[in-house]
Amino acid sequence: MRALIMAGGLGTRFWPKSRREHPKQLLKILGEQSLILDTVERLKPIVTGEEIYIVAMDDQLGKIRKQLNGHAGINYLVEPKGKNTAPCIGLAAVVMQKDDPDAVMVVLPADHLIEDNDVFLKTLQTAEKVALETGKIVTIGIEPNYPATGYGYIQFDQQLAVADGMPLLHVKTFAEKPNVATAERFLSSGDFLWNSGMFVWKVKTILEEIEEHLPQVYDGLMEIRDALGRPEQDAVIRRVYSQIRSISIDYGVMEHAKEVTVLKGNFGWNDLGSWGEVYKLMDKDENRNVLVGSHLIRDAAGCLVDAPEKCVALVGVDDLVVVDTPDALLICRRDRVQEVRDVVDLAKRKKMDQIL
Amino acid sequence: MRALIMAGGLGTRFWPKSRREHPKQLLKILGEQSLILDTVERLKPIVTGEEIYIVAMDDQLGKIRKQLNGHAGINYLVEPKGKNTAPCIGLAAVVMQKDDPDAVMVVLPADHLIEDNDVFLKTLQTAEKVALETGKIVTIGIEPNYPATGYGYIQFDQQLAVADGMPLLHVKTFAEKPNVATAERFLSSGDFLWNSGMFVWKVKTILEEIEEHLPQVYDGLMEIRDALGRPEQDAVIRRVYSQIRSISIDYGVMEHAKEVTVLKGNFGWNDLGSWGEVYKLMDKDENRNVLVGSHLIRDAAGCLVDAPEKCVALVGVDDLVVVDTPDALLICRRDRVQEVRDVVDLAKRKKMDQIL
Repeated sequence: MRALIMAGGLGTRFWPKSRREHPKQLLKILGEQSLILDTVERLKPIVTGEEIYIVAMDDQLGKIRKQLNGHAGINYLVEPKGKNTAPCIGLAAVVMQKDDPDAVMVVLPADHLIEDNDVFLKTLQTAEKVALETGKIVTIGIEPNYPATGYGYIQFDQQLAVADGMPLLHVKTFAEKPNVATAERFLSSGDFLWNSGMFVWKVKTILEEIEEHLPQVYDGLMEIRDALGRPEQDAVIRRVYSQIRSISIDYGVMEHAKEVTVLKGNFGWNDLGSWGEVYKLMDKDENRNVLVGSHLIRDAAGCLVDAPEKCVALVGVDDLVVVDTPDALLICRRDRVQEVRDVVDLAKRKKMDQIL
Repeated sequence: MRALIMAGGLGTRFWPKSRREHPKQLLKILGEQSLILDTVERLKPIVTGEEIYIVAMDDQLGKIRKQLNGHAGINYLVEPKGKNTAPCIGLAAVVMQKDDPDAVMVVLPADHLIEDNDVFLKTLQTAEKVALETGKIVTIGIEPNYPATGYGYIQFDQQLAVADGMPLLHVKTFAEKPNVATAERFLSSGDFLWNSGMFVWKVKTILEEIEEHLPQVYDGLMEIRDALGRPEQDAVIRRVYSQIRSISIDYGVMEHAKEVTVLKGNFGWNDLGSWGEVYKLMDKDENRNVLVGSHLIRDAAGCLVDAPEKCVALVGVDDLVVVDTPDALLICRRDRVQEVRDVVDLAKRKKMDQIL
């Protein structure tokens, strides 16, 4: 098994802590170490450093390498430009194929939270076995326990097998992040799982799927494949990336592929999509506040205050997210944390580069 | 005319900008210079430096002197301890009496806002004339234009005279800061004025009133008077202050004095009692926000943001006061700004001395 860790995201919904130069996967959002380090260490019982491939942009990779410098052998792949997940996965696939033509590839985001690592690793190994035996695309679905609007969903129909005690199901459709009413319908229907964004497949399988559904992307990948290990490699990657289509693997491949399966995992998964998730996961005091730092609370409830360096006084306010950094401060209604990315867009338009 | 500027307050409702070491009167709350400097410069057309007496505690006076160092001749009087306004006024009265036994004394807070200085000075001069001619206590009342709950009120009955075009009225009662319903009743009754906390009287008059209504305070003041200019002066003041009653001039004298008059002034007065007053006085944008600094606003209205050093992003919040300083941040519902002083009390109880 070879693992691709996609570490090219920005995580703008974690602004003001996440910055262009210091994206979400480098942050210690919960716990003692960064999310990318968590992600790598989580895998180490079942893969070696040489079997891990981390893709990110050049300026991100420097910091990632530094955070992971205790881990030898890891393959770092530079994307000249963020082009969404399909080119990223394709790039890793051609590199892995060169290293091992029969490789099974696990695709993992760099910034998710997983509570039960043993079950997680067992799920990956089961998915590997299924991918190897069936040659199909295997996605990892999570049984939903509330009508989340921040996740995509996978609808399944018939059960194909039970693999190592886990249901393997046939995928009917992929669904976008729903509104609340739709999410409630999904939940009560019983045939929807959360889309964890984790995929397992043979390298051969995913390259065939890309060839069929994203031929322009495939042609670019073949150019890159032919240049791998040659002096012109980096120049070819740069040239291909300047023209390659920016598209997600979900849109570009998964929704069109005929035979997609989903393995139902249950390992305490959270994509840490926003400050709202952080509030949800952390211990609360008697007023449902989560306070990081030493603060003064007068009749305030349901607030997340992350300001370790500063005393924050709250008077008469409810359900706020307050995140302080030396040069920027966020004060956001807790039910509107998805809009933090719009604040970052606003800062971009206003050319406030120093806080991006 | 000799002017007492009472500069011993802390202005805790302006926390986190006001601190023990840097109280409200030293702040630039609105405009370009500190409130104490405004107060002194406002008077200079009608009094000399030698006719100005500033009372504060020792550690405050150092900073006040520094801010006023362009103004020569000012008399600085040290209070060993804050003992509310009656001892402060009494102390200044005995010192003024020594300088000029027939002096008329104007008592002014150090931290109010006055828009029309010409009218203000004319009002003081008229009050001086009345105090001199009648020997009565003259208070300055302000015609209320909304049912303020942050001010005390003065109820008047018959009109005694018109002095220089200003009504001089007989005071019936003083009223505490009212609740909204009471404030509305006061406003509609037409016989209530705001109590500006400014008083004008002959030094002789106020000392007689203190003798009658606060004999213990008076005895202490006489001890101080006898020691003025002698080597033991400071020791006597310290000893008297260690025992003198802490009481306001309003409670201790005004409410008991028989013949109190009020001169109705109209010079754009505001006591700048809280961040709410600052919000009210400043220019607002199209969303009724007052923004000091460069900030990111996404669907927020009615907010005051004072954070010149930091970018503040507001998402989906209304009617907040946000005041940022390097070590403390206030986030307070705008209709609860009076409770900022309770936050300061809370910080005291928690012994968070570094932010007091």
